[in-house]
Amino acid sequence: MPKISNKGLEMPESPIRKLVPFAEAATKKGRKIYQLNIGQPDIKTPEAALDAVRHHDIEVLSYSHSAGFESYREKLAGYYQKTSLPVEKDDIIITTGGSEALLFAMGSITDPNDEVIIPEPFYANYNGFATASGVKIKPIQASIENNFALPPISEFEKLITDKTKAILLCNPGNPTGYLYTKEEVKQLADLALKHDLFIVSDEVYREFAYEGAVHHSIMSIPELANNAIMVDSVSKRYSMCGARIGCLVSKNEEVIATAMKFAQARLSPPTFAQIASEAALDTPQEYFDEVIEEYTYRRNLLVDGLEKIEGVKVAKPKGAFYCIAELPVEDADDFARWLLEEFEDDNETVMVAPAAGFYSTPNTGKNQVRIAYVLKKENLERAIDILEKALKQYNK
Amino acid sequence: MPKISNKGLEMPESPIRKLVPFAEAATKKGRKIYQLNIGQPDIKTPEAALDAVRHHDIEVLSYSHSAGFESYREKLAGYYQKTSLPVEKDDIIITTGGSEALLFAMGSITDPNDEVIIPEPFYANYNGFATASGVKIKPIQASIENNFALPPISEFEKLITDKTKAILLCNPGNPTGYLYTKEEVKQLADLALKHDLFIVSDEVYREFAYEGAVHHSIMSIPELANNAIMVDSVSKRYSMCGARIGCLVSKNEEVIATAMKFAQARLSPPTFAQIASEAALDTPQEYFDEVIEEYTYRRNLLVDGLEKIEGVKVAKPKGAFYCIAELPVEDADDFARWLLEEFEDDNETVMVAPAAGFYSTPNTGKNQVRIAYVLKKENLERAIDILEKALKQYNK
Ligand SMILES: Cc1ncc(COP(=O)(O)O)c(C=O)c1O
Ligand SMILES: Cc1ncc(COP(=O)(O)O)c(C=O)c1O
Repeated sequence: MPKISNKGLEMPESPIRKLVPFAEAATKKGRKIYQLNIGQPDIKTPEAALDAVRHHDIEVLSYSHSAGFESYREKLAGYYQKTSLPVEKDDIIITTGGSEALLFAMGSITDPNDEVIIPEPFYANYNGFATASGVKIKPIQASIENNFALPPISEFEKLITDKTKAILLCNPGNPTGYLYTKEEVKQLADLALKHDLFIVSDEVYREFAYEGAVHHSIMSIPELANNAIMVDSVSKRYSMCGARIGCLVSKNEEVIATAMKFAQARLSPPTFAQIASEAALDTPQEYFDEVIEEYTYRRNLLVDGLEKIEGVKVAKPKGAFYCIAELPVEDADDFARWLLEEFEDDNETVMVAPAAGFYSTPNTGKNQVRIAYVLKKENLERAIDILEKALKQYNK
Repeated sequence: MPKISNKGLEMPESPIRKLVPFAEAATKKGRKIYQLNIGQPDIKTPEAALDAVRHHDIEVLSYSHSAGFESYREKLAGYYQKTSLPVEKDDIIITTGGSEALLFAMGSITDPNDEVIIPEPFYANYNGFATASGVKIKPIQASIENNFALPPISEFEKLITDKTKAILLCNPGNPTGYLYTKEEVKQLADLALKHDLFIVSDEVYREFAYEGAVHHSIMSIPELANNAIMVDSVSKRYSMCGARIGCLVSKNEEVIATAMKFAQARLSPPTFAQIASEAALDTPQEYFDEVIEEYTYRRNLLVDGLEKIEGVKVAKPKGAFYCIAELPVEDADDFARWLLEEFEDDNETVMVAPAAGFYSTPNTGKNQVRIAYVLKKENLERAIDILEKALKQYNK
């Protein structure tokens, strides 16, 4: 029997995956599970996007341009320009989700055994993209004590070698909810310029900033034009995760030309989804206002609720829709499994994501979980209530 | 300024890409171009598929399962079973085009510097997927003299080293149009079993077999269950290239489990396109009968037309919708550029794909072009007429 590759063996599984069989078994037993473990919002997709697809007049569903519809790229550039980012149509390649943009970025700027520095905890699939590209992740630990703010620049400098090609940033952060300040982004920019590094900035949650906080895009720094690569996506912005449309943005023409070769090899991004995404750009501001209001409410509900539970410490999120909580348990992996396998309150339980899977350093974040506030008020309240009861019982 | 990667530099460009600026310039001059250079059919997409998307009732466009809709995989398995292939739902991962299935297959079975043997000429994007995966392609030359039949197995054996992980087959072939015989597939299967190799069989043109010829899938050989990986796609079957839906199929559980890790990292295949693809499975047989009739007609028209041109040699295609023709020119690259830049007949010209880009061995196929018969009768007739006139003038 032929053998699969070492790369295949090394490909990490999603940190939540291990829990799925337990969740399935619990569901089979008739247990209701409040899912705080995934970033799938319950927010409605804008009607304009859904309608555009309903009213398509396609006769031959052909490949689009490998960089995506010209009309969509044009309109999308206008969207960024409205937030004062100097993005032109030709700086944009439409990708199959932000996921593919991350893969194209890695492929364009790294060779096997090159290194990319990432503040941890970080979006777990970065591990998968790095393994697929043969790239080594060098983590820098951020701390729950200061809400996962940027670690000191001196810590980054310690890790830079001649193999270092880029710093990968998630802003605002999944799983941390941290929104980098203007000063932090500036510090990173200076570092990148000093060492000739790329900064890949994953901004798929860029609209999700709370209490009037301002998002500082990597594209807002003119001096960084040749170093900055932005990754974006319609998945969260319009609650259109299933569309599978994102983009890679850079003013560096060599990066765009190189990423285009990856784009051409896979032919084109999905057509129906591009139709939906282009139409979504007409979503009225009220949609976003309502969404932000809803998430702010949920965030406050969650953070307040968690802080009231004895022994729980929360990093208050300023963006995205996740937060990391430290629980009064030794092993959140075990606790998460126990929640599904053994616990129930009125035949209900919750599912959380153990945070260790978001750290690259072994044995880190073992008492932390990531909680996504993607449920509506009543469900979120009930979930927090269950969590509190469960912690009491688990610690008996 | 930070540097892009060597991998990025090495990523090949599509062999047609070089011609695009010339085509654009010709179009600007008001010239009409008959495009014989790309595999984008003009056939209508089945109404059932287009309608299913029109009638979607999605409110929240969420991620699907990373392996694709369960219902679609189930139905797709049934589709293969109807052609007597022992494919079950769990042997299938729905991918974003056959392209992504090829990438997942490479990632799952090869490490950087591993080798994959491919009969040439082959689909040029295999080069891109190989470069992206750090894999070396070892070509074996097939010959126009016998319509690009399978090269002798002894030639394969000469190339096998301890780095060889797989043989990649395109059946029926793009760009050759060759349909492998039962005996040829059997020979390859024996070879794979003897040397513990995978066979990745790209069968995206599996329905396009002419004059009652039978397609022999790699999945039809029970002994090969652990070695066989099939790549398929809705792109050509239903003229739905823009959907971006394909699949990876294998009875080897380790392969599926590994490919699933790649699938999970990118979250899910596009939802609207899955709706269309699932509905497309209900396309009535008459649709295919008509399509095959149409392509058979076009193929005969093309082959007969080309054979009548002095100095032209054609490999008669038994499947897909391409053929390779040898032209009475020294450098088909130059001829193809000349067609766009300098030639016109009644202000019209043709665009062909120089075949050298489909060979991995340097300086091979230089007097060959690939012609796609994706145009309707009148256009195809006119295109052949133009080609004949152009060759006369070029050779003066
Ligand atoms: C931080 C981050 N980046 C990228 C992605 C990929 O999203 P998509 O491929 O749906 O655009 C996600 C999805 O959850 C994410 O959380
Ligand atoms: C031989 C072959 N394989 C794979 C593909 C990829 O097709 P898709 O990604 O649209 O399924 C193509 C497209 O032209 C092809 O010709």
